[in-house]
Amino acid sequence: RINGDRLWDSLMDMAKIGPGVAGGNNRQTLTDDDARGRALFQAWCEDAGCTMGLDQMGNMFARREGTDPDALPVYVGSHLDTQPTGGKYDGVLGVLGGLEIIRSLNDLGVKTKHPIVVTNFTNEEGTRFAPAMLSSGVFAGIHEQDWAYARTDAKGLSFGDELERIGWKGAEEVGARKMHAFFELHIEQGPILEAEGKDIGVVTHGQGLWWLQITLTGKDSHTGSTPMNMRKNAGLGMARILERVHEIAMEAQPDAVGAAGHIDVYPNSRNVIPGKVVFTVDFRSPDQAKLDGMKARLEEEGPKIAEELGLGFEIETAGHFDPVTFDEGCVKAVRDAAERLGYSHRDIVSGAGHDACWINRVAPTAMVMCPCVDGLSHNEAEEITKDWAKAGADVLLHAVVETAGV
Amino acid sequence: RINGDRLWDSLMDMAKIGPGVAGGNNRQTLTDDDARGRALFQAWCEDAGCTMGLDQMGNMFARREGTDPDALPVYVGSHLDTQPTGGKYDGVLGVLGGLEIIRSLNDLGVKTKHPIVVTNFTNEEGTRFAPAMLSSGVFAGIHEQDWAYARTDAKGLSFGDELERIGWKGAEEVGARKMHAFFELHIEQGPILEAEGKDIGVVTHGQGLWWLQITLTGKDSHTGSTPMNMRKNAGLGMARILERVHEIAMEAQPDAVGAAGHIDVYPNSRNVIPGKVVFTVDFRSPDQAKLDGMKARLEEEGPKIAEELGLGFEIETAGHFDPVTFDEGCVKAVRDAAERLGYSHRDIVSGAGHDACWINRVAPTAMVMCPCVDGLSHNEAEEITKDWAKAGADVLLHAVVETAGV
Ligand SMILES: NC(=O)NCCC(=O)O
Ligand SMILES: NC(=O)NCCC(=O)O
Repeated sequence: RINGDRLWDSLMDMAKIGPGVAGGNNRQTLTDDDARGRALFQAWCEDAGCTMGLDQMGNMFARREGTDPDALPVYVGSHLDTQPTGGKYDGVLGVLGGLEIIRSLNDLGVKTKHPIVVTNFTNEEGTRFAPAMLSSGVFAGIHEQDWAYARTDAKGLSFGDELERIGWKGAEEVGARKMHAFFELHIEQGPILEAEGKDIGVVTHGQGLWWLQITLTGKDSHTGSTPMNMRKNAGLGMARILERVHEIAMEAQPDAVGAAGHIDVYPNSRNVIPGKVVFTVDFRSPDQAKLDGMKARLEEEGPKIAEELGLGFEIETAGHFDPVTFDEGCVKAVRDAAERLGYSHRDIVSGAGHDACWINRVAPTAMVMCPCVDGLSHNEAEEITKDWAKAGADVLLHAVVETAGV
Repeated sequence: RINGDRLWDSLMDMAKIGPGVAGGNNRQTLTDDDARGRALFQAWCEDAGCTMGLDQMGNMFARREGTDPDALPVYVGSHLDTQPTGGKYDGVLGVLGGLEIIRSLNDLGVKTKHPIVVTNFTNEEGTRFAPAMLSSGVFAGIHEQDWAYARTDAKGLSFGDELERIGWKGAEEVGARKMHAFFELHIEQGPILEAEGKDIGVVTHGQGLWWLQITLTGKDSHTGSTPMNMRKNAGLGMARILERVHEIAMEAQPDAVGAAGHIDVYPNSRNVIPGKVVFTVDFRSPDQAKLDGMKARLEEEGPKIAEELGLGFEIETAGHFDPVTFDEGCVKAVRDAAERLGYSHRDIVSGAGHDACWINRVAPTAMVMCPCVDGLSHNEAEEITKDWAKAGADVLLHAVVETAGV
């Protein structure tokens, strides 16, 4: 079993870097705080006897040698970047849970046959640079590296430039590593495990996602002196489309969600009718037909809503992945580990996207979930208990050791 | 008659300060560009033989002496600040039209009995610091000066600090000056004069306004893993309220408008359900009952919409003025001037708020309007013709000279 106190202390130490304004974290990808978090993680890994690899997307790979020099490593990990108003556990638990496995194996003097590599993937959150899971996506061959480098943030800074600026661009070719298997421990970010009193979620599937960025173009004009019938109000168009997005998701219940998290209004002046609104709709479902159906309806109905108001309508994909089915063998390793350790568990579908969803394309992959309070995540008040963290890391340890062999 | 070419050249010279991105201007109040525009205006006024006064709100007063030392001055003017994506004429025409009167009187060697003072009021637009017409409002005793100083922009900078920083805080007590009369020339910012082929609008009334800032509070949470029935989506609440604002205004037709120009979503991340949205609704009507009725309906229905979605609802006034009736004598002076000069004209209600609306509370006041292309304003593409500008300034000259006496 892992050392729950040590894991917790590391979580709390990492949370000191890039603190938020309400008890959580703002350690967004490729910021100075991201660099500080990476340095701390590297120091911890080296203290635990690992060697650190770094690829051209800034993905970090801390390696503990195995006994068989020819065996492919078993990878574990997640991401250290956070939302602008994020929690202390989303991603971080998976990285530091991986480190805790290595520390525990060191304590016990256990050598595995396959090496174990703990990974921190760059820009999982996708807030600063869309899409989410950008660097695991490049690793898995989903995105071109140059395309990823060209992603820009709200200030127009590019991913590639910012990666260089913070000093974490490595030399290693991205995706060159081959994995024997990949395991990711993550908080659920939803309410199911807590509600059912389960310690462990055995993640069998992941929801698919469409991020659709819509640009409505109207005409900036005076809110007072422009008659109602002469307006081209992009803000009103956005309002109608948001309501439609909600209806589309509700009509696809259960197992579907839809909302817009990101909305920019131009010129955003109290006495100017918005001439342009740019917003991103996030549709998800574990069911491919539902997922694509929601997108198709928005693509059909959005332009009609815009046309009625005299607005231009553009839609582009800002992120996408299909529903995921994780590897049967890896899933079984997680389920067996929970069973063996005596933790209550259930199979579960991940509501969020994870680096594991892309790695699943190139290596046998599975995920371990632990509950989080009120299902709350992407919120500074995100919370878990030390026991939940320990149970998740225990199951991760056993699934990994089982797969890596002793 | 005034010199139309000289007026036009001055308009074009002022437009070089704080250029926009699409042919218009971004010379927002209390920016470095505002300071540059003020300095240019002061230099022009001094060249024309005026002395410059400056009050504690940064309002500028360029005085041309009259022949009667005891006579109160006739004031003319408007504002030099612009929207973030504003036009070259909104406000500026009224200030530089006033200057052109003085230059023309100098050319003709005409002395008026009453002095003439050309005014530039600080922060008419209200974009950077709400409310609009802030400094004419303090001048007219509507707002406390300390309250005005404490207004903050989106970055948290205060009006008082920024006024000091740009070096245009004067010593003169605000509102201490008494006016014989006040005239403001302004572009219509609406479509009526151009549509009817009229040179001049004789402004008899102004619409009243309510700026209502609404804060909806939900709960930041994950767009993927939060089930639809557990969401507190402040973005959806905003969408429903915007639709309601539109309906309320449509049901109050004709002579009423409503929209939201300013919308901020928090944390504004693609994969976070908005936990907070702050937006400003702008309702206007020349009819007091309609104006207050629209506000009352929003205050009644807004909280219900919020409650259905589990959202907190707060509403506060970010700006307000009642419908305005301008001074009969001053209005007649404008109408007579247009008639005498042979310009086609009609009586008109101002759709926008103007410094004249507040000054009307403390001095006999009227406004002259000229057409603008497509009724478009608060847009960089705002346009007028040189002939329209000349006609407006001619009428202003005659109304002012008539009122100031020769
Ligand atoms: N786990 C997580 O929050 N990932 C960010 C990508 C997403 O929005 O699902
Ligand atoms: N004239 C003008 O655009 N003033 C700004 C205040 C308003 O929104 O009416």
